[in-house]
Amino acid sequence: MKFYHLLVRSVCRSIIGFGQPKHSLFPGKLDTWTTALFCRSQSQHSWGSKKAKQRRLQLAQRLIMSDPVIEAQLAPLRSAVKEQGDIVRQLKENGAGDIDLQRAVAELKHRKKLLEDKELELSPKENFDRLKMEDLLKQRFFYDQSFAIYGGVNGLYDFGPMGCAMKANFLQAWRKHFVLEEQMLEVDTAMLTPEPVLKASGHVDRFQDYMVKDLKNGECFRADHLIEATFEKMLEDKKTPEETKEEIRKLLPLIDGMSKDDMGRTLRQYNMKSPVTGNDLTDPIEFNLMFSTSIGPTGQIKGYLRPETAQGIFVNFKRLLEFNQGKLPFAAAQIGNSFRNEISPRSGLIRVREFTMAEIEHFCDPSDKSHSKFSKVADLEMCLYSACNQMDGKPPEKKTIGEAVKTKLVANETLGYFMARIHLFMVKMGVDPSRLRFRQHLSNEMAHYACDCWDAECKTSYGWVECVGCADRSCYDLTQHTKATGVRLVAEKPLSSPISIDVTECVPQKSSIGKAFKQDAKVITDYLTGLTAEDLNSFEQSLNEKGSVDIVINGKSFTLNKDMIQVKKYQKTLHVEEFVPSVIEPSFGIGRIMYTIFEHNFKIREGDEQRTYLSLPPVIAPYKCSVLPLSQNSEFTPFVEKLSAQLTNLDITHKVDNSSGSIGRRYARTDQIAIPYGITVDFDSLKEPHTATLRERETMEQIRAPISDLPQIVKDLSDGRRSWDNVLNKHTLLPKFEHQESTK
Amino acid sequence: MKFYHLLVRSVCRSIIGFGQPKHSLFPGKLDTWTTALFCRSQSQHSWGSKKAKQRRLQLAQRLIMSDPVIEAQLAPLRSAVKEQGDIVRQLKENGAGDIDLQRAVAELKHRKKLLEDKELELSPKENFDRLKMEDLLKQRFFYDQSFAIYGGVNGLYDFGPMGCAMKANFLQAWRKHFVLEEQMLEVDTAMLTPEPVLKASGHVDRFQDYMVKDLKNGECFRADHLIEATFEKMLEDKKTPEETKEEIRKLLPLIDGMSKDDMGRTLRQYNMKSPVTGNDLTDPIEFNLMFSTSIGPTGQIKGYLRPETAQGIFVNFKRLLEFNQGKLPFAAAQIGNSFRNEISPRSGLIRVREFTMAEIEHFCDPSDKSHSKFSKVADLEMCLYSACNQMDGKPPEKKTIGEAVKTKLVANETLGYFMARIHLFMVKMGVDPSRLRFRQHLSNEMAHYACDCWDAECKTSYGWVECVGCADRSCYDLTQHTKATGVRLVAEKPLSSPISIDVTECVPQKSSIGKAFKQDAKVITDYLTGLTAEDLNSFEQSLNEKGSVDIVINGKSFTLNKDMIQVKKYQKTLHVEEFVPSVIEPSFGIGRIMYTIFEHNFKIREGDEQRTYLSLPPVIAPYKCSVLPLSQNSEFTPFVEKLSAQLTNLDITHKVDNSSGSIGRRYARTDQIAIPYGITVDFDSLKEPHTATLRERETMEQIRAPISDLPQIVKDLSDGRRSWDNVLNKHTLLPKFEHQESTK
Repeated sequence: MKFYHLLVRSVCRSIIGFGQPKHSLFPGKLDTWTTALFCRSQSQHSWGSKKAKQRRLQLAQRLIMSDPVIEAQLAPLRSAVKEQGDIVRQLKENGAGDIDLQRAVAELKHRKKLLEDKELELSPKENFDRLKMEDLLKQRFFYDQSFAIYGGVNGLYDFGPMGCAMKANFLQAWRKHFVLEEQMLEVDTAMLTPEPVLKASGHVDRFQDYMVKDLKNGECFRADHLIEATFEKMLEDKKTPEETKEEIRKLLPLIDGMSKDDMGRTLRQYNMKSPVTGNDLTDPIEFNLMFSTSIGPTGQIKGYLRPETAQGIFVNFKRLLEFNQGKLPFAAAQIGNSFRNEISPRSGLIRVREFTMAEIEHFCDPSDKSHSKFSKVADLEMCLYSACNQMDGKPPEKKTIGEAVKTKLVANETLGYFMARIHLFMVKMGVDPSRLRFRQHLSNEMAHYACDCWDAECKTSYGWVECVGCADRSCYDLTQHTKATGVRLVAEKPLSSPISIDVTECVPQKSSIGKAFKQDAKVITDYLTGLTAEDLNSFEQSLNEKGSVDIVINGKSFTLNKDMIQVKKYQKTLHVEEFVPSVIEPSFGIGRIMYTIFEHNFKIREGDEQRTYLSLPPVIAPYKCSVLPLSQNSEFTPFVEKLSAQLTNLDITHKVDNSSGSIGRRYARTDQIAIPYGITVDFDSLKEPHTATLRERETMEQIRAPISDLPQIVKDLSDGRRSWDNVLNKHTLLPKFEHQESTK
Repeated sequence: MKFYHLLVRSVCRSIIGFGQPKHSLFPGKLDTWTTALFCRSQSQHSWGSKKAKQRRLQLAQRLIMSDPVIEAQLAPLRSAVKEQGDIVRQLKENGAGDIDLQRAVAELKHRKKLLEDKELELSPKENFDRLKMEDLLKQRFFYDQSFAIYGGVNGLYDFGPMGCAMKANFLQAWRKHFVLEEQMLEVDTAMLTPEPVLKASGHVDRFQDYMVKDLKNGECFRADHLIEATFEKMLEDKKTPEETKEEIRKLLPLIDGMSKDDMGRTLRQYNMKSPVTGNDLTDPIEFNLMFSTSIGPTGQIKGYLRPETAQGIFVNFKRLLEFNQGKLPFAAAQIGNSFRNEISPRSGLIRVREFTMAEIEHFCDPSDKSHSKFSKVADLEMCLYSACNQMDGKPPEKKTIGEAVKTKLVANETLGYFMARIHLFMVKMGVDPSRLRFRQHLSNEMAHYACDCWDAECKTSYGWVECVGCADRSCYDLTQHTKATGVRLVAEKPLSSPISIDVTECVPQKSSIGKAFKQDAKVITDYLTGLTAEDLNSFEQSLNEKGSVDIVINGKSFTLNKDMIQVKKYQKTLHVEEFVPSVIEPSFGIGRIMYTIFEHNFKIREGDEQRTYLSLPPVIAPYKCSVLPLSQNSEFTPFVEKLSAQLTNLDITHKVDNSSGSIGRRYARTDQIAIPYGITVDFDSLKEPHTATLRERETMEQIRAPISDLPQIVKDLSDGRRSWDNVLNKHTLLPKFEHQESTK
């Protein structure tokens, strides 16, 4: 899929990708091993399965690998990677030919693989049961497949009450953390997008995958995934001759760069078939990942559902700059849905066809990418996986962002500032910081216009998943839209001292042109006013020499004479200079982050395999509080109702559970939907002074406090203004609740 | 457009629609006069213009008409309408033929028109400058046309920073008012929808308009709009013979009910042409208003962009009921975008192709539509425009909702409760209560399954615009999806005493069937288990009489004998009964409400035509507060920064404006973006105790208070916890600011 190399910033591929995880905010970019894994689980076909499992495990333990005994064993493998990495670097520097470079990369890939296999062998085994978690999420309707009663549609998910509330809280927190804190300009733009916009952005021509179809049943596969998986299967097959294996090893790293014809040749040469049916396949076919539709009744306006929200900001740049009174830097932001017609979406929320993104486009002067608030985050320690470390076989490193920017590892302060803010946000939302890293794009995988790009990746049972891309996109998008529309998307800045420039200007003599060319006059004048100084100089020369000049517009020739054109030359003093702003873009995949948060917060109570729960931070928990009458005794009702009204008044989302289950069972249920605090009205509540218990989800500790104080306590706890420890200090800790019955 | 009669609840048409405004949440349903108006203004063509203007004015003053002098003049006209209304009623009761009824309706329409013309003649003229308001909204980037640098696309709008912030605040307020307050289950479901879902809901077959195309340039027009506008032009034309006018008057009220062929005949008979070019037109063509696309790479899954969010709730009914532990009533809600491919969208935010809706589906027992919280709203006085009053030539009436439900004017408590809650919400959001009414659907315009339907309509310069539909949809949708999927979308309720029922059940003898029919065995057993008791009785009879029974499945015949079927009959005791819940649906068009709020809050400062501003309520104002240093004196900076940090800390959106304009000019600018409160740091702020001024937008009054107190005061004011009067009482009122300069 070439488009990602050329254009899109969050791609994670490169000719030196040597089997590392290939995730991307672009749902299409989940890496091969995952696809292989899912193809197997759906079709019960065996290819690629062992490899896939191996890779999954090896990825699942990459980050934290600091055991000195283990490291000692890995050391020789690491140096082998580095040795070859250096050779690749050397070849590149010397401008070696493609073939030599690719061979060297294949060897690098091979060595990297040995290292990873070893890491895998030595790593402790993970203990996470995805099926169990998915059961919980489905049963408590966090999310589930869309249109299930109609058989469902792959890649479409509905958020139920719990998922929707969590998502709304998440987006509200995002707004506070980014939009409010940085005074960004948030916009909400159309999803339906006419073709010319996405033509300019490059999506119409290059946002595509190649696919092959089963000739008999029409089933579709991504061509690159299929080739890779077939090769891996052949490598595992004992019957494959060693010389074929050797060929394959050389071809494997080249797959990402293959053209349509290359892929077709490879498919035929190795006689590849459908992995599901064994049927013959078509040649590769281009498949654009955008959903197309037609706007208006005539069918003449071709449109697409936007594949990203960013373009809606770029096309509004002029209005936004004006709104900001012409001043830079400023950031615009947008939360909204985007759409990608994945060929075969799997892996739950991680690769879907309709998804919510939150994107920021920070516009700044390309010659000054400092950030006024950088000092506030400079000391934040982050896990950075630099391009160098990736090529040197080294693990990620912990560094302060201040140091990373100072040493030029991260290209500039603004990029560093956003990386730090992303880190802080992710952790606040419940991402486990030990399973969060920022991976730098290798020079080969970065979009050609980008200066630097770091992906926030989260470790999940699917491996390292790209959740946020953070790229310096330079001036690519604004330039593209300027080219396409003729509308100059630029900003101005004052010059330190005014400068004089020579201006050559064409003044068409409209009356003469009109007389001579009638209805063609307008296109001619437009053409003339659009000419560059260079063009005008040669025009002038021709006029002086021949007395006339010939021009061709839309295939039609016109001869103009001196009466029709006046070329003015003069000097002009400029006080400002125009420039195309650079764009730094943090781009969040909301579904992927939410999925990560689910995995990182899925827990099982010690000693009870059945008591699964979610330890979501209060800020994103669907409900902040539960209100439970100890039993269905009607004396509790007025207290429950009063508490509920007070909580509503304080805008605290809460759930009253007055069902008949035991209190223990009801606590377990509220734990499953991640309610952090629970107020229980019991028989003591009936006596004056009226009190009730407050329970905290993580510790299961309880205190008793006056009923009238509880709503404010819960408010302060959920807003993060007060800690549970602080509450504990001020109130009586009760004996831990275990299996108390609902009646006394 | 027949579909609206048959299926969709928010239609405002009927055979007795006699020229009343025909708005609908469905953007396509803006009424003819508006279309005529816009056609004219775009094409400079003259047809329909006078009529359109007249109607616009007549609509703009409908509601409040209580001047006794005016009423005296209207009285005879009102009784004429009533007299004819009674005749129509009588004819209906007697089951008169269509032709007689339609003739009577035409006369009714004629009389209604005389009344409305008189109302118009007598009404005071309105003073609202839409262009001026649109200038403000564009200039301050509340919203603007999408993709303008690419020439724009009709019916698509982008919300800029101010519109987006206002929309986000609006939706957050909606969530609090409805979802939180009523503990609704909010969901967030896919926009891409596979065809079978929308086939079942009726949208695939009936969500369509008829259009005609200009044969030369391909321009499209809605057929019904075109016929109506042409007729109206002919009625105005002095050259039209009186007998033709008579024919036309009879046809006018029939347009809404015309079939495709009727329309074709009418177009030909009156030789209708394109109103823009005068060119010939095609015959009417069905045009489905949904955007279609194809999901997945094979092109085999046809899909649409949802035309409403409601279906996403219905298809999740089972999960939601389960989530609610099987209990009714409960309400689900959804905020999200929907899409309609309007033939020729105009009128700004009111009729667009992509729009945000907020829909509630309240599921309840059809035999009990009481509402536990009804008493809390019963005394709310609302403006109700009943179907009866519409037929009697009477204006809307003010009534408490309690009285309306008691007298059965509003069908049930739940519907009444929601109407009241909608009223409260709209007023809280800034809709002028004197320009808000609830109009009941006439029996003819109501969807055939609905029991009662009221639209919240707001008076704008476009006339009365339907902003919220509030309908009792009965069990239509759940029944349709049950039919389509075989999944029973039902709820259960306990029976007061258990009942015994007779069960007739077919037990297919699988081994015999399998032996006899091999691969057809499964379809046969499926068929058999799906049979009704009636079918089984006749089966049994046939088996007993002939020893066999013949069945046909998918065109294939099978003969079954006694060995293959066992019919069991037994009694069963039931403790619960199943039922299909009724649905009460409030459905909000967010863009339309926002537009109304803009109009109702657009103001001009007395004595200064240029000082336009928006008096949005703080709850939806994009920013709650401005912070203005009196001048660019650097001594102010630390105070401004501290205030900004404190405001951020309290989650108060605010704008620091330290640009060089005079303070008066900056106040005017903050008024334009509806900032309700402004803090100004001036020279007095530098002295201890540090104080600053706080200004209120509406009154332009100012107080002075300690800087450290101001953020909390603004917080309390914007949350509605404190009134400006209350603040005034506690602090010194300063002399009103007029044109003080920025330097002392």
